Amino acid sequence: MSSQPTKKLLILPGDGIGPEVMQEVRHIISWLEANRGLSFDISEDLVGGASLAQYGEPLRDEVVEKARAADAVLFGSVGDPRWNHVGFDKRPELAILKLRQELALFANLRPAKVFDALVDASTLKPDVVRGLDIMIVRETVGGIYFGNPRGIETLPDGSKRGINTEVYTTAEIERVARVAFDLARKRSNRVCSVEKCNVMESGLLWKEVVTDLHAREYRDVELSHMLADNCAMQLVRNPRQFDVLVTGNLFGDLLSDLASMLTGSLGMLPSATLGAVDNEGRCPALYEPIHGSAPDIAGQGIANPIAQILSFAMLLRYSLNMQAEAVLVEDAVSAVLAKGLRTADIMSDGKTRVSTSEMGAAIVN
Amino acid sequence: MSSQPTKKLLILPGDGIGPEVMQEVRHIISWLEANRGLSFDISEDLVGGASLAQYGEPLRDEVVEKARAADAVLFGSVGDPRWNHVGFDKRPELAILKLRQELALFANLRPAKVFDALVDASTLKPDVVRGLDIMIVRETVGGIYFGNPRGIETLPDGSKRGINTEVYTTAEIERVARVAFDLARKRSNRVCSVEKCNVMESGLLWKEVVTDLHAREYRDVELSHMLADNCAMQLVRNPRQFDVLVTGNLFGDLLSDLASMLTGSLGMLPSATLGAVDNEGRCPALYEPIHGSAPDIAGQGIANPIAQILSFAMLLRYSLNMQAEAVLVEDAVSAVLAKGLRTADIMSDGKTRVSTSEMGAAIVN
Ligand SMILES: CC(C)[C@H](C(=O)O)[C@@H](O)C(=O)O
Ligand SMILES: CC(C)[C@H](C(=O)O)[C@@H](O)C(=O)O
Repeated sequence: MSSQPTKKLLILPGDGIGPEVMQEVRHIISWLEANRGLSFDISEDLVGGASLAQYGEPLRDEVVEKARAADAVLFGSVGDPRWNHVGFDKRPELAILKLRQELALFANLRPAKVFDALVDASTLKPDVVRGLDIMIVRETVGGIYFGNPRGIETLPDGSKRGINTEVYTTAEIERVARVAFDLARKRSNRVCSVEKCNVMESGLLWKEVVTDLHAREYRDVELSHMLADNCAMQLVRNPRQFDVLVTGNLFGDLLSDLASMLTGSLGMLPSATLGAVDNEGRCPALYEPIHGSAPDIAGQGIANPIAQILSFAMLLRYSLNMQAEAVLVEDAVSAVLAKGLRTADIMSDGKTRVSTSEMGAAIVN
Repeated sequence: MSSQPTKKLLILPGDGIGPEVMQEVRHIISWLEANRGLSFDISEDLVGGASLAQYGEPLRDEVVEKARAADAVLFGSVGDPRWNHVGFDKRPELAILKLRQELALFANLRPAKVFDALVDASTLKPDVVRGLDIMIVRETVGGIYFGNPRGIETLPDGSKRGINTEVYTTAEIERVARVAFDLARKRSNRVCSVEKCNVMESGLLWKEVVTDLHAREYRDVELSHMLADNCAMQLVRNPRQFDVLVTGNLFGDLLSDLASMLTGSLGMLPSATLGAVDNEGRCPALYEPIHGSAPDIAGQGIANPIAQILSFAMLLRYSLNMQAEAVLVEDAVSAVLAKGLRTADIMSDGKTRVSTSEMGAAIVN
């Protein structure tokens, strides 16, 4: 039995399949409370399209404050085609973008791991992806996502000009590179830093800062550099050459999605986004599955809840320091896969197809 | 026998394997001159690292003028690790960036095609890539590659800030989208436009402009839109869903390299970069293999010359209107592959391994 003080969790299911898969996490939380003597102080709220529908905005300030007060945030997913035409300042996606920025969650940890039982789910040959285990560290509060000036302006002749600005400072690059180097030390001790220094000055600075930091503090870690276009190719050609990748917001967005897809089982992959550790040793953190809201299959009870459940396991491990419970949840997932249970997205010949709730229940058992 | 007037070609072999693979094109040109009554007015020059070594700059104005005067430019590849530390304004890469801009070569056509004989060269399962035939149309004179302000500035505390600007105007987006729609009409009639309109205003404008142009002039073509991160995933999950993709400079850089790698045989893929047709019906154009300068294998005589040769075939077809000769060259390539000849990069069991010059000679025969 654990005897930790009650921990504050904020649960934000969001849109699409978010609420369905989150439901399965709730069952696991109940089980942990009933069987492991834990108690969680849980609050919930709406974000994304769900919040737009109810409150007219994708993320209320109140929810930001709740997130700030929580020990960790468990996020579902946002995005709903019904809000596609609602205007740039009312996008469901603003919920996650704003949470990242308000809580300064600058380091998105995106593991791309191939489960042995699911090696055939990949569109890549088993020989290329078996045992794949990459960690992409993506910067998430800077770069072109947030830089100014930005916007669309109308030119004298009535035509338009769209502008965005990529900005990175030494400090922003250093703090995320530090996360990558620290993680590498606990893994295979290799970091590959990715930019377009042959075209962009922001990439040139990125490379310089990572190189300097490495020379000053992380000489024991092997560092390499790669251009983003080459990295996209290398992830397809020979993904196992990588251990930890570190890159900016925009490249990280594409490359981490690409890396996830190499596993063939997006429905299995969790992620964490971490901020800076404060004076009291607290670190704001948000956990979310890497899959999106999948509006096309929402409400059918067929979504895979494992990525959301493993996101919760990451939360237990990193934010609540509940290692034993994290392992318990992860082992339960492995056991259920070993038994041959599969949701539709990872179904293959000879396995047993189950629904979202059946998968969740099997993991709880 | 063709009776076309003498055509002016500018050949720019560049760095690394560029000169070796270009040599095989020269043999083909000689054969065409000897056997098809053609005559080419060929000039050659140095670019990239080779030009830096000789003249201290990656691309002389003189070469730009020669390119302007030519009917077409056949480019090798640039990039040489020896010039890695030479400074941002002396990068070998400036040769290609400056040529694109000076000649306003705004549409980079990047086919990703799987040759039946080479379907096993892919790291993806044969079932996923067999018959793959995508055309990526990448904007190449705008976006974050060329936008201002840009640079690295030193902040009061001595730390730095790197800045780049993504800019797209209605006119820039329209002209490249037009190329994509026109190409689609000659193919499977489907265009997918790719941006990050959920995060970037320049992407939002991109989507609007493409949508409007489609409604005005290309209703017969099927148009879809996709976010760039999703596109990176979909290219791995199910690449055959695409016909023509159109996107900006930076996304195009990553996505076209990714798409090329799906074929497993980079050494086979040509590309064309086209400008606007002028009043006399002339269109500036540059042809280059999609592979880079591959400094690691340069000078060993093992590089695959086929991408360079097929780039020349594209040049014959698109810039010189020599359809018959283009087909001749392409058929020669297919015949040699069918015979089982393979350079090291595409070698597989039971095939005959040949050198760069043996491959070139076989194609000439
Ligand atoms: C929802 C969207 C704004 C977001 C992003 O682009 O960062 C998503 O794609 C992600 O990767 O977390
Ligand atoms: C050489 C480099 C500047 C170039 C680019 O980034 O555009 C290359 O990667 C390409 O795709 O043609």
